[in-house]
Amino acid sequence: MADLSTTLPLTRDSVIEAHKLISKYVHLTPVLTNRTLTELASTPRTPEELEGTRWAGRTPARPVLRLWFKAENLQRIGAFKARGAFHAVEKLKQEPGWLEGGGKEKGVVTHSSGNHAQALALAARESGIKAHIVMPEISNPKKIAGTKGYGARVIFCGSTSQEREAAAAEVISETGARLVPPYDHPDIMLGQGTMGLEFQQQVTELMTADAEVDGQRRLFRAPATGREPGVPGGSKAGLDAIMTPCGGGGMLSGVALSCEGTGIRVFGSEPSFEGADDGKRGYETGMRITAVKTLTVADGLRTPVGEHPWSVIYGRRLVAGMYSVAEDEILAAMKLVFERFKMVVEPSACVPLAVALFDEEFRAMVEREAGEDGWDLGLVFSGGNVGVDAIGKLFAESK
Amino acid sequence: MADLSTTLPLTRDSVIEAHKLISKYVHLTPVLTNRTLTELASTPRTPEELEGTRWAGRTPARPVLRLWFKAENLQRIGAFKARGAFHAVEKLKQEPGWLEGGGKEKGVVTHSSGNHAQALALAARESGIKAHIVMPEISNPKKIAGTKGYGARVIFCGSTSQEREAAAAEVISETGARLVPPYDHPDIMLGQGTMGLEFQQQVTELMTADAEVDGQRRLFRAPATGREPGVPGGSKAGLDAIMTPCGGGGMLSGVALSCEGTGIRVFGSEPSFEGADDGKRGYETGMRITAVKTLTVADGLRTPVGEHPWSVIYGRRLVAGMYSVAEDEILAAMKLVFERFKMVVEPSACVPLAVALFDEEFRAMVEREAGEDGWDLGLVFSGGNVGVDAIGKLFAESK
Repeated sequence: MADLSTTLPLTRDSVIEAHKLISKYVHLTPVLTNRTLTELASTPRTPEELEGTRWAGRTPARPVLRLWFKAENLQRIGAFKARGAFHAVEKLKQEPGWLEGGGKEKGVVTHSSGNHAQALALAARESGIKAHIVMPEISNPKKIAGTKGYGARVIFCGSTSQEREAAAAEVISETGARLVPPYDHPDIMLGQGTMGLEFQQQVTELMTADAEVDGQRRLFRAPATGREPGVPGGSKAGLDAIMTPCGGGGMLSGVALSCEGTGIRVFGSEPSFEGADDGKRGYETGMRITAVKTLTVADGLRTPVGEHPWSVIYGRRLVAGMYSVAEDEILAAMKLVFERFKMVVEPSACVPLAVALFDEEFRAMVEREAGEDGWDLGLVFSGGNVGVDAIGKLFAESK
Repeated sequence: MADLSTTLPLTRDSVIEAHKLISKYVHLTPVLTNRTLTELASTPRTPEELEGTRWAGRTPARPVLRLWFKAENLQRIGAFKARGAFHAVEKLKQEPGWLEGGGKEKGVVTHSSGNHAQALALAARESGIKAHIVMPEISNPKKIAGTKGYGARVIFCGSTSQEREAAAAEVISETGARLVPPYDHPDIMLGQGTMGLEFQQQVTELMTADAEVDGQRRLFRAPATGREPGVPGGSKAGLDAIMTPCGGGGMLSGVALSCEGTGIRVFGSEPSFEGADDGKRGYETGMRITAVKTLTVADGLRTPVGEHPWSVIYGRRLVAGMYSVAEDEILAAMKLVFERFKMVVEPSACVPLAVALFDEEFRAMVEREAGEDGWDLGLVFSGGNVGVDAIGKLFAESK
């Protein structure tokens, strides 16, 4: 994690530079389509479906949506977080004097009970750097074991953010390790944004590729609804919009940077449960919300948006809008991904799909903005770290 | 389903012909690798792990296994069964007089409560042929809805095989529909075998491809353990063996035909619970077992091996061996696939992996036959039709 004074400016070109640095460490995850989900997204909901929801009595929207999915659940450590962590570590290695000053031995430190912990542990190990990970004692034993499995030293602490920060500060004073925060830093944002670059390029390639290869039906072909993309006369070959989940905002702001100047609109999506839609509320009032306390099932999205991401999302208006969905909508989307896509995704990863399928506000906006042509909409499956036990519990509780 | 007198001979060339007929209808499903599972397969189990199993006290085997997975859970209708159904329908359309005699209107019929029902409904619909599907009244409502969703007429019956066959016979006498059995027919076997052809070619391509594309790390690269495949001096680029699940034997016999003359060995795998290992027991005694009554979690593998598949599997010895695993081993393999692979697979699809990881008899055989070079072993993920509710139940019961 480079010092703030030496980080690259927050631009699309810097995301391209970040991609060059990390591409040998991270997977080029596939872009997928699914006919059933695209048809579902392009079918108006019935008035009956809207009964009992916040959209009751409203005329159902009629958007045309062709869905594309970036499968970051197949990324290393099972989530996009690997991108930011590898970028932060690479930038640190480039920082003048850090290696010479014994940086590898001093190591890196973070406090996290989630995907960032494993991502940093992995990135540090691959460069022979010590990793100190501060985790609450009550963390999921599987996540503790996973983090240790990547060779990190795990330091336990209490559950409050004060206790976590104090424990990290103690590690720093003892070891001289460098703090690598999970989202609120330009290096992390630029790293996560690399997914946006790949997404743009992969969709354009898929749209312009032949529908068949050697006469064989393609598994991951262009979505079938509406205008045929990539055919002569089509207005363009590429995404019209991308929607990502938004927790701390590292991924959302990075992807927004990756789209700057391309004409691709970027949207953020959050759970609404217990105020987890802090990004949306802040975006609407113009004031960043700095504290959130929620137990939404989308456990990767329980944090408030960080200051640096906010400067991109709202300050520079690189995000065109924020949307939020209810817990049952997130689980319904997750069920569809499991049963129709045969993909394991964590609840947080299903929030953008839930917006595309169930949020009448979003759907009406697409109908209005895109008209009959519709949009090619990219949705990010941000991670897949959910155990079979947790799956059983989620869907038992939801009944 | 062509009349038996007009079917192609059971040879590799006929599988190639079948592939030409169906390739525009079925997906070229991806071949995947996973470093964690390959390392696990190539790590000897500890004596402690063998305690309490049928291998207690035995010296753990030390096989070297590089695993490759054919993701037929991403096939149309979520299972390999689409291959056989499309092939049967195409052959029927080619049968002299069938179309002219009003075949499309008379339709096709089968009795199935599983993946074959949806596969036949889909294949018939795409050729404008009526499909009559006989299903037990107690079938999973989701499977009934899925079959109707493909436009089939569903006829309900009792649960015994006599009641199912009687209901199908009634449909035939009323409509003149043609019976398409789920596995015991050459057209079905040759159709399922097409997966074996793709598997062979895809692995060879992946082995000989560069490890990086444009400097970007590949997601689905060659497994990392042991000999580097495809490098100069390596003995070959391709699979050494393939293992498939075995229920009625349509897939196993078809894949065995696809490998005839290639030097690739083919193995079958079954659950052992309540005698579901009829194929293995038959193979060892030389007598096909014609009735099985089991409630194994691998619900696609509850049927005995059919007569035509048996003639290939045992009669012509195109299958090199049969192995079986316990229920907890199947669920442990399924958990690994979910959590490490981020793929939704049904229990039946995990039986080959369970053999590769847990069956000391199989593992000792690989150690003996393959030595230090080890084997590149292809495992078939045969299907992914399992609901989130069922996942919860499976892993709640297994505790």
